[in-house]
Amino acid sequence: MTDTILLVGGGGHCKSCIDVIEQEGRFRIAGIVDVPEKLGQKILGYSIIGTDCDLPELVAKFSNLLITLGQIKSSQKRETIYDEAKKLGAEFPVITSPLAYVSGHAHVSEGTIVMHHAVINAAARVGINCIINTRALIEHDTVIGDHCHISTGAIVNGGVSVGEGTFWGSGAVSKEYTRIPSRGFIHANSLVKGAP
Amino acid sequence: MTDTILLVGGGGHCKSCIDVIEQEGRFRIAGIVDVPEKLGQKILGYSIIGTDCDLPELVAKFSNLLITLGQIKSSQKRETIYDEAKKLGAEFPVITSPLAYVSGHAHVSEGTIVMHHAVINAAARVGINCIINTRALIEHDTVIGDHCHISTGAIVNGGVSVGEGTFWGSGAVSKEYTRIPSRGFIHANSLVKGAP
Amino acid sequence: MTDTILLVGGGGHCKSCIDVIEQEGRFRIAGIVDVPEKLGQKILGYSIIGTDCDLPELVAKFSNLLITLGQIKSSQKRETIYDEAKKLGAEFPVITSPLAYVSGHAHVSEGTIVMHHAVINAAARVGINCIINTRALIEHDTVIGDHCHISTGAIVNGGVSVGEGTFWGSGAVSKEYTRIPSRGFIHANSLVKGAP
Repeated sequence: MTDTILLVGGGGHCKSCIDVIEQEGRFRIAGIVDVPEKLGQKILGYSIIGTDCDLPELVAKFSNLLITLGQIKSSQKRETIYDEAKKLGAEFPVITSPLAYVSGHAHVSEGTIVMHHAVINAAARVGINCIINTRALIEHDTVIGDHCHISTGAIVNGGVSVGEGTFWGSGAVSKEYTRIPSRGFIHANSLVKGAP
Repeated sequence: MTDTILLVGGGGHCKSCIDVIEQEGRFRIAGIVDVPEKLGQKILGYSIIGTDCDLPELVAKFSNLLITLGQIKSSQKRETIYDEAKKLGAEFPVITSPLAYVSGHAHVSEGTIVMHHAVINAAARVGINCIINTRALIEHDTVIGDHCHISTGAIVNGGVSVGEGTFWGSGAVSKEYTRIPSRGFIHANSLVKGAP
Repeated sequence: MTDTILLVGGGGHCKSCIDVIEQEGRFRIAGIVDVPEKLGQKILGYSIIGTDCDLPELVAKFSNLLITLGQIKSSQKRETIYDEAKKLGAEFPVITSPLAYVSGHAHVSEGTIVMHHAVINAAARVGINCIINTRALIEHDTVIGDHCHISTGAIVNGGVSVGEGTFWGSGAVSKEYTRIPSRGFIHANSLVKGAP
């Protein structure tokens, strides 16, 4: 029997997450948590079944959880949800698209989603509660800290170190062995040469 | 028995289209339409069997048609061929590489080719007679109008709206929810922030 | 029984190569050649078993060879190793990731590695001893000379000609039919319009 999973955040990014979860086929989506105004609405056929206030009850019922809220300016909201749900005893599975490639020599931590056509190459490590978005490339020996969003089509080259809570914009390309401090913000389609 | 398909336009882009059609294996290529000077020449083993003047006869014989003419400066020629062949009763199947991914929550319209390693994500919609070129990424909720060419490796992020007849250059990356007016021209490798 | 292969160069790029070789499953890695100081060290579980001085003996023992030394500023070192090992009678198989796509209408020459998610499209030709790195795209009709490194996520569009010994930086995108002279150097994430 497939396990159920609860999604927290019902915006556009949630749709991409649903697509990955469906393709992976490991979890049945129990429903989505969002703001009170959206209660009863559906996203790709899945109902918004509660708000943040209902988390204690929902986590008790559906243990597995994925934070499907997007992240652009700051990771703060995603971190807060993670901390709260963790205290409530939620489990955070790694969600990996069957169309992504994660090297057997790499490590991906709990609560992270690896989306369609992403690659995580040999000896890379990815922290907790990250978004490795569609077609993002994490090259060999690269370390991605906790709570980062590596956006669509980004290229994080070999040996790069990305501090926690960083947003790495879509299509941005780094030099090898660059270091990005915590809470970094990398502009879309930029060339990343080091700490800004 | 596999159906036959007629290709219109025998340049470089046609070669990539042939590769996709062969990999998909759903259609047998009947031949290619191009200018009179090329009659009898072969492209990857397929003959140029007629010119625009022969379209009435060829459409009657081979009903399925794909416009394999490239598109850079303007979509005009591809639109004209589409309109003429449509009046002649041609069918325009969607051609999708088995190496591409089209979400079950997305919609792609007739006459469009989705090439190797392209992704069309959840809740996206793509119009008629488009080229979604190799490794182009159409993210969630994005709408691509009719007769657009989304070039190789382009990243059209979530919620973007692209007007009909637009050329989106290779590797160009958009911000989310950008709107591109009809007949837009996006330069290769540029960052797209909105209407130019 | 699977054949053995010897790797020359034990840096970061070697790890990505090991991952591709393991996924392809065609060769068993016999060991790695690097500098004397690294003798006995292991890379992803494979031992450094010799130095350049041991090449005559090692080539005699393990005939198949892949140059896994990286290439950024110059291809000189990779060319020298190729020439020496060739004289010693080494065989240079093409290594292709099962996650890459090489068109049946394309040709790839000996000693070249085509890494995860790379695409080599119809009528393209790639020379000897090249690195077609993760997610690099070589479009239709493009010719890549010998000893080139096409870096991660690069987009070499249709009909481009790249001279031997060129380094094409990560994420760099070309116009169609551009010509790059021998020993070219293309900056990461740049737009390539022709000879610099």
